[in-house]
Amino acid sequence: MNKIVQCVPNISEGRDLNKIEYIISPLKNQEGFKFISAEPDKDYNRTVITLLGDPEKMIIPLINFFQRALEKIDMRNHHGEHPRMGAVDVTPFIPISNITIEECVEYAKSLADHISYMYQIPVFLYAKAATDPSRINLPDIRKGEFEGMKEKIKDPLWKPDYGKAEIHETFGVTAIGARIPLIAYNIDLSTDDEKIASTIAKAIRASSGGFQYIQAGPALLEEKGFVQVTMNILDYKKNPIYRILETVMMEAKRYQVTVTNSEVVGLIPKEALLDSIKYYQMSLGIPFDKNMSIELIVENSVNYMKIRDFDQYKIIEANL
Amino acid sequence: MNKIVQCVPNISEGRDLNKIEYIISPLKNQEGFKFISAEPDKDYNRTVITLLGDPEKMIIPLINFFQRALEKIDMRNHHGEHPRMGAVDVTPFIPISNITIEECVEYAKSLADHISYMYQIPVFLYAKAATDPSRINLPDIRKGEFEGMKEKIKDPLWKPDYGKAEIHETFGVTAIGARIPLIAYNIDLSTDDEKIASTIAKAIRASSGGFQYIQAGPALLEEKGFVQVTMNILDYKKNPIYRILETVMMEAKRYQVTVTNSEVVGLIPKEALLDSIKYYQMSLGIPFDKNMSIELIVENSVNYMKIRDFDQYKIIEANL
Repeated sequence: MNKIVQCVPNISEGRDLNKIEYIISPLKNQEGFKFISAEPDKDYNRTVITLLGDPEKMIIPLINFFQRALEKIDMRNHHGEHPRMGAVDVTPFIPISNITIEECVEYAKSLADHISYMYQIPVFLYAKAATDPSRINLPDIRKGEFEGMKEKIKDPLWKPDYGKAEIHETFGVTAIGARIPLIAYNIDLSTDDEKIASTIAKAIRASSGGFQYIQAGPALLEEKGFVQVTMNILDYKKNPIYRILETVMMEAKRYQVTVTNSEVVGLIPKEALLDSIKYYQMSLGIPFDKNMSIELIVENSVNYMKIRDFDQYKIIEANL
Repeated sequence: MNKIVQCVPNISEGRDLNKIEYIISPLKNQEGFKFISAEPDKDYNRTVITLLGDPEKMIIPLINFFQRALEKIDMRNHHGEHPRMGAVDVTPFIPISNITIEECVEYAKSLADHISYMYQIPVFLYAKAATDPSRINLPDIRKGEFEGMKEKIKDPLWKPDYGKAEIHETFGVTAIGARIPLIAYNIDLSTDDEKIASTIAKAIRASSGGFQYIQAGPALLEEKGFVQVTMNILDYKKNPIYRILETVMMEAKRYQVTVTNSEVVGLIPKEALLDSIKYYQMSLGIPFDKNMSIELIVENSVNYMKIRDFDQYKIIEANL
């Protein structure tokens, strides 16, 4: 059985599509893994890239990709909404099948070792690869961002795990690590009032008393003309999608607001959808078949959870 | 202005009403505080007593009450659904008005000192009165219950705060403390399947990924023939009643189970009811009046939250 990981490098360029294409091209049409998507965001000035497959086969193309990011991105001129500290800002390896998180940590270290040695890029290992509890959370490492890193990296507490305690003048620094899968999930509301999305986000997120494994906030989609509750579901087994969706619907009621749709950003494990389909079918008294086809999973997800812009290739297992 | 506390001793007897009456009688018709209620539960074999008023005036009657519990309850023969470790199992002092939590801690210590000295009952100080972080949570102290306490108390880690490291042969041990108000809230389900209540409790409680300020578990009310999700709401502002109730309803659906009623044990602050009434009235498009009469608060609570066995004297403010 092949080892399968999801690898999601983020680069600090979300506007110049030619540049982005040049940087990501070593990741395309490779043996052993699939290039799933590149999702550039103009406001963030950042692109999220998703790869799926054998991590062994990803390392050389990733080194190539780092080299091109180094060549094209000068962090001294970078501005964007999203916090960042390097041209390639972060690269997580996420175990999907036939691989442990510990093995993912080893691939993270291998990539870190190569790029620090070849290009003098300082690397922080983060999440499950972290060498110290203070380095588990990416925002802690990234605090100060590119501009503050010049000084921060000289503090012995922030000595990088690979490379010298000195930022790369144009690239900055990078974080490489391994983490368990999370689901990026957004719920569309029938209003453009961001305060409503904010109040509902507070009701469901861990940091203000809500569900333990939910990070959530409001987002105004100006072009589309409505707000979202945007979230990460860090543990979909403990905080399943249906429970969050139903709670958001319940909270929205008091504002005479409805949930119009929901949205999965990036990939989602099949099991997360099946768990929620099971809830709805049991509630409706419809027999649940855990071996339903991938097409039926998509159909049911759209019906029950109102997931928009969805197809089977958003499901991890359909890409394997 | 008078100092007002709520004091809620729990005794390990919920079946023999004559015994209960004898034990609680020193708490009735006293100057300076009101005897609000005694709520015996046959399945739990436990009675929750609620006092409200000046803590200074409660101490002597409470000592008397402990003495009578000691006289009438033999823990060696006690069985019930609720975890317990002593004849008087726990006595919290809760600040309501014109008093700080620190003053409540002093009253807890005063009571502890007296009853350990007079009746050789070992006392653990808990919650805000705890002398060690391991003793903040009552379930940690109570783990092992009456039967396990014989050995546990000999462990230097579990040396009682007052009295010898030896259980009272018939009384067991007791916990006395001070804590902020919480709401003891139970939700009745239309089933006698305890597994369903247990699964739902896990979905909502903090310890398994649910809402941050909820402690919950299942309870089978054998006499009544149904199960409850029984809970403490530790912060009703962050985890309001309606949100928990609606989430339990939603989770129950998958088992074709409904919420038949809910129940407040002891007292509840007016604000906690108003917050939830507001949710339902806003959702229904009914104008909400935060100055509604106490009678209307009761009526709305029964209508919207299906609270059974409820009247205005369950509301703290109606007793002041």
